[in-house]
Amino acid sequence: MLKGKARAYTNIALIKYWGKKNEELILPMNNSLSLTLDAFYTETEVIFSDTFTNDLFYLDDELQTEAATKKISRFLDLVRKQANINKHAKVISHNFVPTAAGLASSASGLAALAGACNEALGLGLDQQALSRLARRGSGSACRSIFGGFVEWEKGHDDQTSYAQQIPSNGFEEDLAMVFVLINDQQKDVSSRDGMRRTVETSHFYQGWLDSVENDLLELKQAITEKAFQTLGEVMERNGLKMHGTTLAATPPFTYWSPDSLKAMQAVRELRASGIPCYFTMDAGPNVKVLVEKKNQTAVQEKFIELFSRQQVIVAHAGQGITIIE
Amino acid sequence: MLKGKARAYTNIALIKYWGKKNEELILPMNNSLSLTLDAFYTETEVIFSDTFTNDLFYLDDELQTEAATKKISRFLDLVRKQANINKHAKVISHNFVPTAAGLASSASGLAALAGACNEALGLGLDQQALSRLARRGSGSACRSIFGGFVEWEKGHDDQTSYAQQIPSNGFEEDLAMVFVLINDQQKDVSSRDGMRRTVETSHFYQGWLDSVENDLLELKQAITEKAFQTLGEVMERNGLKMHGTTLAATPPFTYWSPDSLKAMQAVRELRASGIPCYFTMDAGPNVKVLVEKKNQTAVQEKFIELFSRQQVIVAHAGQGITIIE
Repeated sequence: MLKGKARAYTNIALIKYWGKKNEELILPMNNSLSLTLDAFYTETEVIFSDTFTNDLFYLDDELQTEAATKKISRFLDLVRKQANINKHAKVISHNFVPTAAGLASSASGLAALAGACNEALGLGLDQQALSRLARRGSGSACRSIFGGFVEWEKGHDDQTSYAQQIPSNGFEEDLAMVFVLINDQQKDVSSRDGMRRTVETSHFYQGWLDSVENDLLELKQAITEKAFQTLGEVMERNGLKMHGTTLAATPPFTYWSPDSLKAMQAVRELRASGIPCYFTMDAGPNVKVLVEKKNQTAVQEKFIELFSRQQVIVAHAGQGITIIE
Repeated sequence: MLKGKARAYTNIALIKYWGKKNEELILPMNNSLSLTLDAFYTETEVIFSDTFTNDLFYLDDELQTEAATKKISRFLDLVRKQANINKHAKVISHNFVPTAAGLASSASGLAALAGACNEALGLGLDQQALSRLARRGSGSACRSIFGGFVEWEKGHDDQTSYAQQIPSNGFEEDLAMVFVLINDQQKDVSSRDGMRRTVETSHFYQGWLDSVENDLLELKQAITEKAFQTLGEVMERNGLKMHGTTLAATPPFTYWSPDSLKAMQAVRELRASGIPCYFTMDAGPNVKVLVEKKNQTAVQEKFIELFSRQQVIVAHAGQGITIIE
């Protein structure tokens, strides 16, 4: 039986991936840089067998709909092509994220699936090749192959677009990320649709592209120097800029909810009170606060007080993909 | 005794004034277009006399500090130069705005002062010249010389930068603007400082300039056609774009508070429930909702329910500057 199982952790971009230049190959418009985190991960087992008459996808013990399975099947097709086989597969996946946290990231999911397939079919892909494969499933998944700080080099074709860990002298071990989970009634614009609308219509998208490279350089320099304040400032400004682009799209939209603003204000208050911490947000209302471990408790307590204990989760640097026997 | 008194109403820009190309002359980077409103106004009396040894400025019956008086004196200097006189003045001003609404606009204030000076010194300025003069006191004041829909032509020097009423076939009589007053603890970035920082540092400012002219054209077309939905959509998108520019400034900043987002969401909900209404915001957390008079009550009630009766004020189209005998 062709069987493999892997675990991958989610990652949060400090320099955002925002816009594709090739939708099919998932080639991004700009390099991005993330931190892999230990608090949220996916474990996925895949079994290829002639006995299956179609692909089956179980997520958290529930057989998924045809629509959800289709995305997985498209990814499996790439793998089958690489392995030159024609077998259907059963995919059994578990997301280790707080229930209803809205953090069931496709990054950890597709990275774990790529790792499991590599194992099951003995593809022998090294980490770079695995990163490229994961990218085809979900762009940011290519970063979840690695632990710590990870840069996704945008490249110019399928071969040249992949992630790699960047040297940090263990800086990530000093850091914590406090997740503030925010419920929102609003209908979401998916990350995929949001970035497409922004690339196609936003009057600010060129300004994003013109400045993101410099943000990346400054942030990498901050990692090299272990300069937390600069790291935080550049991360925060890059995230705000990403969210600014959506306001000049047609029609304009925002991922922010009232409580997102409340959390941002709390971060500014914490800084004013002498605790260096910085926020970032992705394609949803949750706010993620980067802080040094030594100040983690103060940040945690502030948010528990402002929101609730259930809404505050702390993560630390996580590792790259691991194969589970 | 050289004495004059005038009343001017505030105005809200539907296409925003955002950025100066000449700070001293107050020449704007782009044309803007506003609606003059009846709910907030300033009445100002000015007396020029040799008996005064310096300028005195009373606002709402309180003698103002030297710092506040300095701004007024600089404006009076322009007037004195035009009239070729050398007398100090006493300025007595009353703002008719809800207490602590944060809407004490310099637009109505400086427009009223310009009108009062014109009267007191018999300058004989026509409305265009009065608009130019008011502009020197506070940019958006040049629009408060006129009632209804008003466009500020940016011009290229002191002579060519002034506002004028634009023909509307009385469209403004169908409209209401619901002000949602939002208290915010945050220290404000003034409109003046915010636009300067944006012009100088925002990676999105070029995108603003590149698209604002088209917004203006579409909005003027909507006025001509009395097309409320287009008017609202273009106004809302132009306002969001202005606020987007601040997110790419260095350092980034926002005028939004949690309750601003709550009000925006309520506007979207009202639209989803079949009531066409659209929001705009200026350099502060208040949200202004444009709606047709026939739907005004529904909008008013929604916001009173969400906030409080004291926080919701309705305005209709206001008139231009008037001389008070």
